[in-house]
Amino acid sequence: MTKFEYILKQLAKTNKKNYENYVVTRIWHQLNSLEYKFITQQYVIRPNGNYALTDMFYPQLNLHIEVDEAHHLSNVENDITREHDIINITGHKILRINVCCSIEEVNQQIDNVCKEIIAIRTNLGDRFTVWDIEKEISPETYIRKGYIDIADNVAFRRIVDAINCFGANYKGWQKGGSKHPVEKDVQLWFPKLYKNGAWDNSVSSDNLTIYEKPINSEYDTYLTDIVNSNGLKRIVFARVIDSLGFIMYRFMGYYELNVAQSRNLQTIVWERKGTRVKTYSYS
Amino acid sequence: MTKFEYILKQLAKTNKKNYENYVVTRIWHQLNSLEYKFITQQYVIRPNGNYALTDMFYPQLNLHIEVDEAHHLSNVENDITREHDIINITGHKILRINVCCSIEEVNQQIDNVCKEIIAIRTNLGDRFTVWDIEKEISPETYIRKGYIDIADNVAFRRIVDAINCFGANYKGWQKGGSKHPVEKDVQLWFPKLYKNGAWDNSVSSDNLTIYEKPINSEYDTYLTDIVNSNGLKRIVFARVIDSLGFIMYRFMGYYELNVAQSRNLQTIVWERKGTRVKTYSYS
Repeated sequence: MTKFEYILKQLAKTNKKNYENYVVTRIWHQLNSLEYKFITQQYVIRPNGNYALTDMFYPQLNLHIEVDEAHHLSNVENDITREHDIINITGHKILRINVCCSIEEVNQQIDNVCKEIIAIRTNLGDRFTVWDIEKEISPETYIRKGYIDIADNVAFRRIVDAINCFGANYKGWQKGGSKHPVEKDVQLWFPKLYKNGAWDNSVSSDNLTIYEKPINSEYDTYLTDIVNSNGLKRIVFARVIDSLGFIMYRFMGYYELNVAQSRNLQTIVWERKGTRVKTYSYS
Repeated sequence: MTKFEYILKQLAKTNKKNYENYVVTRIWHQLNSLEYKFITQQYVIRPNGNYALTDMFYPQLNLHIEVDEAHHLSNVENDITREHDIINITGHKILRINVCCSIEEVNQQIDNVCKEIIAIRTNLGDRFTVWDIEKEISPETYIRKGYIDIADNVAFRRIVDAINCFGANYKGWQKGGSKHPVEKDVQLWFPKLYKNGAWDNSVSSDNLTIYEKPINSEYDTYLTDIVNSNGLKRIVFARVIDSLGFIMYRFMGYYELNVAQSRNLQTIVWERKGTRVKTYSYS
């Protein structure tokens, strides 16, 4: 996909939302730089644990822009499925544009947002990475960086790209999990975090706890197998649908099994123990 | 309607047309001036007589912008009804934007179009009238000007606004015609130029000839009535639907009856004899 195709698809999501289309296109055209990526209608977890959509998200800046309309309802909050790509906005900045005023006032607010975007970028200095549509989903980017961090909003198009960040050099990968190529006691896991097939998985709204539940198989046996095989550590990439409808594997963090709780709840309980994991080049 | 509402509605017509939405919003936001009005998807009569839609029309500049997509077909040309607002683009300028290239190249073409718009405005000098959404459909504007000219793309929201340009001061008007308040041998006519009710009207594609045909009544009697009542001259405002779906009365010109041809064709034949008519203030 080229940047042009990508931008057109993001803008297309504002079809029939006239105010959003006006604000989002104006920010894009006024900013007038191909160095910034944006995502429209990004699902987020608000600090209160509710889900919502923000109208425009700049992942390089952790900045969200919301268009406030008179009739704006935030009723989306409850009924979304876990298959959507959901990011945690803790620490993110949200700028609001009130469109219930004159076009001059709306334009002025948008000018201010553009200035703020440039200011945030300036503050980031070397930590700002120019948008590179090829590199952003490429393992090499993260191998060179030395780590994958939740703060960078990392998601891969294919499972194999995630695995190859950890010292492998596979052409493809069919399964929903893999051994870590280097750290032998760690598993790489690519779960659907919602009910699917033989699994009834879920995740807490703060992403700190993942619940893994086999529906048909014998639960105690499954838990014992994990413990006996020394599979207590997992790096998790959740399978989600991004805002354009593509499947992605979103980095969730490093998790460890809580054995006591798992026995208690009759559900495998994975607790997040880290938000950054080391990457390895293939040798 | 405010300018903001108007612009949002015009942009909304590019919903689901991703390239058009990109180009039209970029021109609007880059130009960044509330002094220019634009219309998206304006029906036009091309010099070859065919009808077509242009993607963006600047009526103050008589400038059209067309977005050229790979799959672009001009098949609209034949099957539109006369109820649409159709303007004649003879003498208008058309700029084309080819979107089958990189985003950088598209942006460059749009920058050039914006420069051209500003250049045309500069060339117009005093003849450029700043967009005033209230005044543009107000009789006072044209009374002050002293005339209504086809080149100014004049259309009124109500019949009474058109009549009041010629020396009347009515509150409302119910009929599809009126005597000229000052020039007693002239009729003001507000026809539907397509088949409707008891009439089968039409207009030539160059707008030079209007054919008026009563379906049920006795044709010769109708023609004789017109001739005997000295109703040989008409100023015509055609009833059309504008690009936002509103009814408008579009100035077509000054027409005279061609009696011989009318007898010949068994259809009342009106021939355009002028493209500018004098306006009068109420006294």
